[in-house]
Amino acid sequence: MRFFSDNAAPVHPKVMQAIADANQIDTAYDGDRWSAQLDARFSETFGCDVAVLWVATGTAANCLALTSLCQPHQGIICHHEAHIEVDECGAPGFYTGGAKLMLVDGDGAKVTPQAVGDLLGTIGNDVHQVQAAALSVTNATEYGLTYRPAEVAALGELCRTRHIGFHMDGARFGNAVASLGCHPADVTVRAGVDVLSFGFAKNGGMGAEALVYFDPAHADAARYRRKRAGHLQSKGRFLAVQLLAMLDDDLWLANARAANAAAAIIAGAAQGRLLYPVEANEIFVRLTAAEAASLRAQGFDFYDWGEGAARLVTSWHHTEDDVAPLARAIAAL
Amino acid sequence: MRFFSDNAAPVHPKVMQAIADANQIDTAYDGDRWSAQLDARFSETFGCDVAVLWVATGTAANCLALTSLCQPHQGIICHHEAHIEVDECGAPGFYTGGAKLMLVDGDGAKVTPQAVGDLLGTIGNDVHQVQAAALSVTNATEYGLTYRPAEVAALGELCRTRHIGFHMDGARFGNAVASLGCHPADVTVRAGVDVLSFGFAKNGGMGAEALVYFDPAHADAARYRRKRAGHLQSKGRFLAVQLLAMLDDDLWLANARAANAAAAIIAGAAQGRLLYPVEANEIFVRLTAAEAASLRAQGFDFYDWGEGAARLVTSWHHTEDDVAPLARAIAAL
Amino acid sequence: MRFFSDNAAPVHPKVMQAIADANQIDTAYDGDRWSAQLDARFSETFGCDVAVLWVATGTAANCLALTSLCQPHQGIICHHEAHIEVDECGAPGFYTGGAKLMLVDGDGAKVTPQAVGDLLGTIGNDVHQVQAAALSVTNATEYGLTYRPAEVAALGELCRTRHIGFHMDGARFGNAVASLGCHPADVTVRAGVDVLSFGFAKNGGMGAEALVYFDPAHADAARYRRKRAGHLQSKGRFLAVQLLAMLDDDLWLANARAANAAAAIIAGAAQGRLLYPVEANEIFVRLTAAEAASLRAQGFDFYDWGEGAARLVTSWHHTEDDVAPLARAIAAL
Amino acid sequence: MRFFSDNAAPVHPKVMQAIADANQIDTAYDGDRWSAQLDARFSETFGCDVAVLWVATGTAANCLALTSLCQPHQGIICHHEAHIEVDECGAPGFYTGGAKLMLVDGDGAKVTPQAVGDLLGTIGNDVHQVQAAALSVTNATEYGLTYRPAEVAALGELCRTRHIGFHMDGARFGNAVASLGCHPADVTVRAGVDVLSFGFAKNGGMGAEALVYFDPAHADAARYRRKRAGHLQSKGRFLAVQLLAMLDDDLWLANARAANAAAAIIAGAAQGRLLYPVEANEIFVRLTAAEAASLRAQGFDFYDWGEGAARLVTSWHHTEDDVAPLARAIAAL
Repeated sequence: MRFFSDNAAPVHPKVMQAIADANQIDTAYDGDRWSAQLDARFSETFGCDVAVLWVATGTAANCLALTSLCQPHQGIICHHEAHIEVDECGAPGFYTGGAKLMLVDGDGAKVTPQAVGDLLGTIGNDVHQVQAAALSVTNATEYGLTYRPAEVAALGELCRTRHIGFHMDGARFGNAVASLGCHPADVTVRAGVDVLSFGFAKNGGMGAEALVYFDPAHADAARYRRKRAGHLQSKGRFLAVQLLAMLDDDLWLANARAANAAAAIIAGAAQGRLLYPVEANEIFVRLTAAEAASLRAQGFDFYDWGEGAARLVTSWHHTEDDVAPLARAIAAL
Repeated sequence: MRFFSDNAAPVHPKVMQAIADANQIDTAYDGDRWSAQLDARFSETFGCDVAVLWVATGTAANCLALTSLCQPHQGIICHHEAHIEVDECGAPGFYTGGAKLMLVDGDGAKVTPQAVGDLLGTIGNDVHQVQAAALSVTNATEYGLTYRPAEVAALGELCRTRHIGFHMDGARFGNAVASLGCHPADVTVRAGVDVLSFGFAKNGGMGAEALVYFDPAHADAARYRRKRAGHLQSKGRFLAVQLLAMLDDDLWLANARAANAAAAIIAGAAQGRLLYPVEANEIFVRLTAAEAASLRAQGFDFYDWGEGAARLVTSWHHTEDDVAPLARAIAAL
Repeated sequence: MRFFSDNAAPVHPKVMQAIADANQIDTAYDGDRWSAQLDARFSETFGCDVAVLWVATGTAANCLALTSLCQPHQGIICHHEAHIEVDECGAPGFYTGGAKLMLVDGDGAKVTPQAVGDLLGTIGNDVHQVQAAALSVTNATEYGLTYRPAEVAALGELCRTRHIGFHMDGARFGNAVASLGCHPADVTVRAGVDVLSFGFAKNGGMGAEALVYFDPAHADAARYRRKRAGHLQSKGRFLAVQLLAMLDDDLWLANARAANAAAAIIAGAAQGRLLYPVEANEIFVRLTAAEAASLRAQGFDFYDWGEGAARLVTSWHHTEDDVAPLARAIAAL
Repeated sequence: MRFFSDNAAPVHPKVMQAIADANQIDTAYDGDRWSAQLDARFSETFGCDVAVLWVATGTAANCLALTSLCQPHQGIICHHEAHIEVDECGAPGFYTGGAKLMLVDGDGAKVTPQAVGDLLGTIGNDVHQVQAAALSVTNATEYGLTYRPAEVAALGELCRTRHIGFHMDGARFGNAVASLGCHPADVTVRAGVDVLSFGFAKNGGMGAEALVYFDPAHADAARYRRKRAGHLQSKGRFLAVQLLAMLDDDLWLANARAANAAAAIIAGAAQGRLLYPVEANEIFVRLTAAEAASLRAQGFDFYDWGEGAARLVTSWHHTEDDVAPLARAIAAL
């Protein structure tokens, strides 16, 4: 049983069916009947007018979002372990034309208003220094922690008063919302987020993410930038239908809840070993090399996380029965 | 019956089946068993060692290819009606970091050694002038013309002697090879092409193109640039299997031949109206506004091509029976 | 006697004196007492509030100006023989992050509203096409022609109605204004120009140009971009004093008038040979190879301009006595 | 008496004289007789064949150097307090097309092989991670410390074995060499440095730095990039003569020695207050707010350096008599 990544899970059957159903002749490029529904459908989900673009990857979603908030000569504040900083091969630098990522610390890859304020305090109105134009946070974070509505709102208020944009990397947005039990707007538009990378690939999709603009006016330039980045797929209907299938009956929430529930079972068995509270679908545990080897010998695969630790990730596809053996194996270590 | 674009055709059933079959748990990102076969399978097809990357769009394939051949301060020679110049929203400028497209003329969007040589003749060893680093041609061209092996070889020889790279945009490479009846290597590696954008989306694929490096050493940096451009899909297996299905039993050739055959039937009926010889699957015809309206009234859809002309494109999905009514309708105008 | 370029002339003695006078201890970087006077002094010259940055070269001035008007994914309309297109080694692509120069034709490198309108007419609201964000014209043009106030105003009105920015490359702005006999505002701010590259290096300066923003709010980001381009000189006072010396008693106008007067003398002798009317300080003449050789044998240096033609440029430093021998020699051919 | 910055000192009279002498008609742009001497003259200084380009600023020199060593998708290792990281408004990101600065720690802004090795150890052969292509160090550092020949050589050897380029920011290279008493080649070409930003503006120049390529083949592309960055000055002779005047009789060394000697006097008086050993011309001292106010009241100007500290910088222009009063004032605090 593999716990490498939620990326490694299969595509949900309803998504596969939607793809199969969309295989009919239609006009190409951005002009199909499914893509045309995205704005309305996501506006329902968020309870306000949004403009939505499909893109194939989270990296593309994140970086297109950043170009909407930041000029090439400016900077973007993020955590030093943020995906955009450590896992995208410099994509933000490419997309923004050389803008600078300005790094803050924080436990569990979580950004606090204090940390952002401190960093802003070091930047004078001085042409030698890059000026911050945006903040980007990840919810759930790279360590599986969630930002609660009030936490997002505090950051959003700081952004508003300092006149900087606010982006949320929601590669595991579903897992965060499922964990928080809040309305998706509570941790986005109502809390001051300008643009959201709403991830589906880790949550049962095949290769489609939603770039959600809470100010629809922003989306216009983004459509040109998407094409310019080679991300306008001629048969974009196959991306659109993935997103629509995910919104139907809130499949995205159901999938995220399943992944979170599976993680909770493992976390329960690993109480004394947890590096971070398990709030979504990632479990970081202390494991000696011998313990890790023992688990692997029993057929459980996962990534080492530096020395003496490991990361386990659950997905929509993991049932209670799937994870019970792992929970038992960890408890028995 | 729609003749807007080969992009608008459905995905071939064998490709759909391959996608369905690939929906199993696997390691994510570039590490699946299907992606690992690409180099070997395409090497068979071309009869030499190649390195291959999947990407979702032709624009991404073209532009990643160009970054392998051209530094930001250099230039790329292409036809003034090349797709990279007119239809990609400036993507080459984005990917290359501001390199310049240097335009030449030529009938039917076809580039000649004479035109390239003339342009190179205007560029001195002068720091005020952008220096050309690469040539990019499209085969089949944007007007459906093909470059024969000797024509490509003449351009390749010019590139070799002038020390510039050679890229081929093969959005309709299958249609060109099917039309020429040659080996795919005859119009690429044997003729001096360094890197090929081998298109499948217009030829029955869903959203996958192959970036083929005839010097495998070039591919290493391209893998980083692909990630950096947000084009490394976590479930890349779904792109890999599209390409593999297309190579199985030369499905790409069969599909291209079907599209070309359909185009030939229409061309036969439109002899006196053709703007260009029909060598692949695009037909450009003179049509008055009244004639165009008449065809549309009979249920045939297509793009106007300026005033008094129209473009019709056939696909792998058009059978003889599908196009016969259009052929009759054109003949009857 | 050399007629290669006004760039090749010596620095005016008053400018040299100002540089010598500024060689005293002062605070560095943008904070000196001379730089602080630029806004006020240029505001007097133009009769309105402007914000001014010194930069060392015309290329830097032009390209910084363009970044104020154009996003990386957009385009800039200019003449196909504009300096930014043919003589800056792709600098606009570098500065703008890959924006596209969109070329129009026009006699003597002059842009007409008709040509701009025609080009705009080919651009749809279509994500595949680069959208124009700015127009850039050169006054005097690369062939020494001037835009009259009404001509600039017609272009400015077009820009206003089409919502695109308007940049003027004034490498020889002094020569244009001297020739037109108008107020400098007549061909800039009163005619809709947003930003002007006001050239001094060709007009008696050493290495300083003025980037003049008619909307001072634009200048703020430009100050960051200037630093980021490595153009903020620590001893910027030596650039500031050049500009101030040029404004003192309108030295820039006096110098330009001298250069124009010298050109007029040559033009008078070359009436039958002129390729273009001589409106500023450049003379383009038909010359056979034998005639060119004859002039060179008499000690006159200049550039060939393709076959059978030559370019002669006068400067502030050419007196009537200097050019009389050349005029006689041409008349005697 | 001002101790803000060596940038704030006057231009050395010999440099001023050289500029005045160069004010004669000459061919423009890179083609003058003085610029043509640079390669030979700097080759003498370094005892090996070098290729040299003048540029107006240290930021331009540094960033052009980096583009010679690093592709847009790669990274550059430097200290987290390096000038390129903190004081150039993101210029490296602009020049390189978005390459990433990869930061290491180290006392006094000094980079150690250990720190570089540790950082390299965190980078796998993994497309998600930016790969390091170059190391950049500053000699003397931003805190006035010098790298000794053996220290540079150890870094150079590491770069060689890891196949990464090696750049030295020598904004105060003269001060470092004067302090070390070594041959300039000992801390550059003989120690594995590929390209040096050799600073003169802080050492008595007006606005000229030398970009020194120890592999002359590198310089060819740099000449195009210099033009493309707007740094090719049409009257470049005025930059060339500054550099030549500085090399004459090793004026650069004499000036640096004078600045260092002045610093040593102040350092001697501030022994108990020094934050770092004073090896060049910068003195960082602990000073209470009251002490700082007292010094300022006596006519000494300088920058605060955070709370309770100050930076004083001496220049070629400070004589023993100039600094003696400051030394006395500090001793008397």
